[in-house]
Amino acid sequence: MNSYILSDLQHGKAECRLVKVERSSEGPDAVHELRDLNVTTQLRGDFATAYTEGDNAHVHATDTQKNTVYALARQHGVATPEAFLLTLAAHWRTQEWVTGTCFTAEEYSWLRLPANGHSFVRSGQEIRTATVQTDGEETFVVAGLTDLTVLKSTGSEFHGFPRDRYTALKETSDRVLATSVTATWRYAPGSEATVDFDVAYDAIRTAMLDAFASTHSLALQQTIHAMASAALEACAEVAEIRIACPNKHHFLVDLEPFGLDNPGEVFFAADRPYGLISATVRRPDAVEEPRAWAPVPGLR
Amino acid sequence: MNSYILSDLQHGKAECRLVKVERSSEGPDAVHELRDLNVTTQLRGDFATAYTEGDNAHVHATDTQKNTVYALARQHGVATPEAFLLTLAAHWRTQEWVTGTCFTAEEYSWLRLPANGHSFVRSGQEIRTATVQTDGEETFVVAGLTDLTVLKSTGSEFHGFPRDRYTALKETSDRVLATSVTATWRYAPGSEATVDFDVAYDAIRTAMLDAFASTHSLALQQTIHAMASAALEACAEVAEIRIACPNKHHFLVDLEPFGLDNPGEVFFAADRPYGLISATVRRPDAVEEPRAWAPVPGLR
Amino acid sequence: MNSYILSDLQHGKAECRLVKVERSSEGPDAVHELRDLNVTTQLRGDFATAYTEGDNAHVHATDTQKNTVYALARQHGVATPEAFLLTLAAHWRTQEWVTGTCFTAEEYSWLRLPANGHSFVRSGQEIRTATVQTDGEETFVVAGLTDLTVLKSTGSEFHGFPRDRYTALKETSDRVLATSVTATWRYAPGSEATVDFDVAYDAIRTAMLDAFASTHSLALQQTIHAMASAALEACAEVAEIRIACPNKHHFLVDLEPFGLDNPGEVFFAADRPYGLISATVRRPDAVEEPRAWAPVPGLR
Amino acid sequence: MNSYILSDLQHGKAECRLVKVERSSEGPDAVHELRDLNVTTQLRGDFATAYTEGDNAHVHATDTQKNTVYALARQHGVATPEAFLLTLAAHWRTQEWVTGTCFTAEEYSWLRLPANGHSFVRSGQEIRTATVQTDGEETFVVAGLTDLTVLKSTGSEFHGFPRDRYTALKETSDRVLATSVTATWRYAPGSEATVDFDVAYDAIRTAMLDAFASTHSLALQQTIHAMASAALEACAEVAEIRIACPNKHHFLVDLEPFGLDNPGEVFFAADRPYGLISATVRRPDAVEEPRAWAPVPGLR
Repeated sequence: MNSYILSDLQHGKAECRLVKVERSSEGPDAVHELRDLNVTTQLRGDFATAYTEGDNAHVHATDTQKNTVYALARQHGVATPEAFLLTLAAHWRTQEWVTGTCFTAEEYSWLRLPANGHSFVRSGQEIRTATVQTDGEETFVVAGLTDLTVLKSTGSEFHGFPRDRYTALKETSDRVLATSVTATWRYAPGSEATVDFDVAYDAIRTAMLDAFASTHSLALQQTIHAMASAALEACAEVAEIRIACPNKHHFLVDLEPFGLDNPGEVFFAADRPYGLISATVRRPDAVEEPRAWAPVPGLR
Repeated sequence: MNSYILSDLQHGKAECRLVKVERSSEGPDAVHELRDLNVTTQLRGDFATAYTEGDNAHVHATDTQKNTVYALARQHGVATPEAFLLTLAAHWRTQEWVTGTCFTAEEYSWLRLPANGHSFVRSGQEIRTATVQTDGEETFVVAGLTDLTVLKSTGSEFHGFPRDRYTALKETSDRVLATSVTATWRYAPGSEATVDFDVAYDAIRTAMLDAFASTHSLALQQTIHAMASAALEACAEVAEIRIACPNKHHFLVDLEPFGLDNPGEVFFAADRPYGLISATVRRPDAVEEPRAWAPVPGLR
Repeated sequence: MNSYILSDLQHGKAECRLVKVERSSEGPDAVHELRDLNVTTQLRGDFATAYTEGDNAHVHATDTQKNTVYALARQHGVATPEAFLLTLAAHWRTQEWVTGTCFTAEEYSWLRLPANGHSFVRSGQEIRTATVQTDGEETFVVAGLTDLTVLKSTGSEFHGFPRDRYTALKETSDRVLATSVTATWRYAPGSEATVDFDVAYDAIRTAMLDAFASTHSLALQQTIHAMASAALEACAEVAEIRIACPNKHHFLVDLEPFGLDNPGEVFFAADRPYGLISATVRRPDAVEEPRAWAPVPGLR
Repeated sequence: MNSYILSDLQHGKAECRLVKVERSSEGPDAVHELRDLNVTTQLRGDFATAYTEGDNAHVHATDTQKNTVYALARQHGVATPEAFLLTLAAHWRTQEWVTGTCFTAEEYSWLRLPANGHSFVRSGQEIRTATVQTDGEETFVVAGLTDLTVLKSTGSEFHGFPRDRYTALKETSDRVLATSVTATWRYAPGSEATVDFDVAYDAIRTAMLDAFASTHSLALQQTIHAMASAALEACAEVAEIRIACPNKHHFLVDLEPFGLDNPGEVFFAADRPYGLISATVRRPDAVEEPRAWAPVPGLR
């Protein structure tokens, strides 16, 4: 028998696809609202004997967790992804043997079609993300977006970088800048009681898009910083934001061998490799909270 | 030595990612146009000795085909996906040893951001598709879209189907209907000289979305027929259209075991399996042309 | 009211994930057999009024089709993917309003772990494919594989191709040749009564791998022809085979700017674009049967 | 002008696909060795002015980082993924403005074909992973695997879990247990100087597979603990291991409505949702090192 130390015990149901229809009227002219979520639950707590002995007496079954997602959606609605995850957290944090929780959601947005009030087309742009965690009495809320793909066909330069034995890249004063933004912001502790998460989301998304477009970029780093700062400006309840952006290279095709010039017109959009740049920007008065970021992938 | 019969010889370059920027002005207020394509080329012809003997004397290298994509984009521009594939076809159909050609493209659309004329966000909705083939002197043009995901939260029924030993499905007079439309339409022979492919695309897409939304659906088949008919109404140059639609099941969650009702509010969006329905709708005066459909995947 | 012509009506259940366990013994020493399939069903027939009027009286529900997959697996077992699809076809071809059928399957293979007779690791190599169609009294069986990824680090050349204005590729007498084989073979009419599909599959797969490895390749076309011919040699019941292969380019990295040589050692494995080569090879006495190939994607 | 606090600055080149061929002989009988990696580099350090001012004087271009991957592969070879990442780290940690580094790799394995010494088929099983970080003088090495998909068709139970209002799951004493293992282990500080990473990998992988197969499982948690413990037993240099496993549900299909029994034979393999269980197991004498785990996705 070994005496290894067990930690970080978690179990839950991943990717519960939940579509919530709010039916304010019926019939051919029915007007409905839609929220389309992919919810993952994780409980943390006193579960060690399941691992060491296969004793499930403390293990809230992942099937039960899934049922709870759907039942609480019926009972409390889905006002916003964050509000719904807070509802799940309020339920689970008080259950026996549970000392901490982690709930995440992706949201897919839909646009209303003009024909009537209950037909929609999936918008297909970015995926909205949200994570709510509890640790005993404390609550952490982070939210964000991923796969927001943007491109500038001018207004981007890159030069002045150091050159060493392995440097071959030419400097450029006009390039295509394209990226797929992943941003995650942390709401200040306690703000979950007052913030309107939909309003905040829209404000931050708009601010980041505008910063991307209006920043004359000398480096993707500079654009990231501008987007992060704009997000903090847009929403006072956000304490901190992390952004990670691939540099989706668009290489100007060399057509000289074919007797043609190429004045910034024909590009090859490459897949791999790609640059990858990230940073965190925090308000000076915000206290760091590493626990809030633990489940956010791809960031240290 | 065997004496097997060789046929269907094809070679080309797949997935040439081409981004074409049209720069009508420069500087901070520059207004640019963008076309973002994924182009695949295939040549057919007298290439047998490459297969039987490794003799490449007739094999226009796939690298050459790729270069031609980028060079012709520079020389002729990318007015529409279809127009660009017709340009490729005009080039290749006259090359030595080439008796037929097949060019396909996917197009990804971008929306202009408000800040200026050269910043864009990827729209993320459907992918536009186009295929141009030549067979000797003949030309075939099909176009379409895929991944157009739509949902109706009411106005869909399903009942009256036959019941046998293995039938368990309950009839319903109100369900969520969701699908991801793949549609491909064939332009009438010769119409490529006159049709405005962008105008046609927008008209067909709008017509299909409107038909989806406004059809009170007794079967996904009926909705497909309505969308196909609407597309033919919307564009006189289209001879024929094929539509394939998954039935993306949204199951009403049974909350009764938990003491809750569920009046069409909480759904589980399932992945697999899914229904899959398809049909072709053709104008009565249109002549069938199986060759035009050969490279279109997933349809017989 | 329009008078468009409806054709190619199909409906079925796609991607029914079926795992069949054959339990020849029980307990800690149990020895089980596993077949892991992804089955898609499609019925063709007299279904027009579902499209035109939403009348489902002839529509065997896709849910019923799914149930039939599982029920017939219980009743008849899954000896091979092809045998199981033939069982489905035998059931459905005689049902009312059905004039044709199409059943496809992917199979994922598992390797037995040494510890006991009921533990497995997914092999992860190629996916096996099978399609059975009926058209009235006739039956068509095609089978194949996809995603069989192979690489030769020498023994591949490419030169002697024509050069035109857009040709830039250098000739090479030693390159990495890598591809992911998609092959589909058609069994001769009637052979489904006698062929052992597992034996045939293994023989063809082995023959193709051996042909890939042992052919000194002057063109991927030549390798494809060698693999196709080897498959026909390996299985007398196969009338015809189609192979499509991407040329997964492995570019020798130019290290000269960094003062280094690179004698065939360091390669960049590119994603897109890639060459794409295909062909069909048929026995001289085999009759062509385009209907058999209709649902096979990516081949004309 | 804002006065936000910038932190966690990182930039690098993601997904550099590197195939390294070791050519010990040439010609038709050539015997080659292959390492096939996907390498991501990230530098950390004094880069703030790139973010705040677009000043790239300290920014080692991601293109330079990519070139360095290929150049160092030529100069130092790729003995193992971990050894190669340590080579990258040794180079970059001493460069100006760099205070920390993070290098990750995926490795895809190939099996030799019998025909000769230079033809391979991709094994397709798990992906091997490795991460090397430096923080000043310190070095952290973690390694692992992902997508190792395993299944037991008996020898798995699940019962004794708590029941609440939302519990509907039936207890079972015989179920299919299937999962896709993601495991990451941390090598003890300093062990990178002596451990043979390939030997360690094979030993840990074999130990985990054997533990999966031979553990009569009362909970996936118990199986995870057994695999983690077996890994620690198999390799003395491993201080700690984290395992995350989806419970890939295989639901016994209810065939009773069709007049059929189903004694553990016919299963529906579900996609979403799925259980998700994880844990960390550490040697009692090992010191925790959160920095080593920072870039490992999906674990807190």
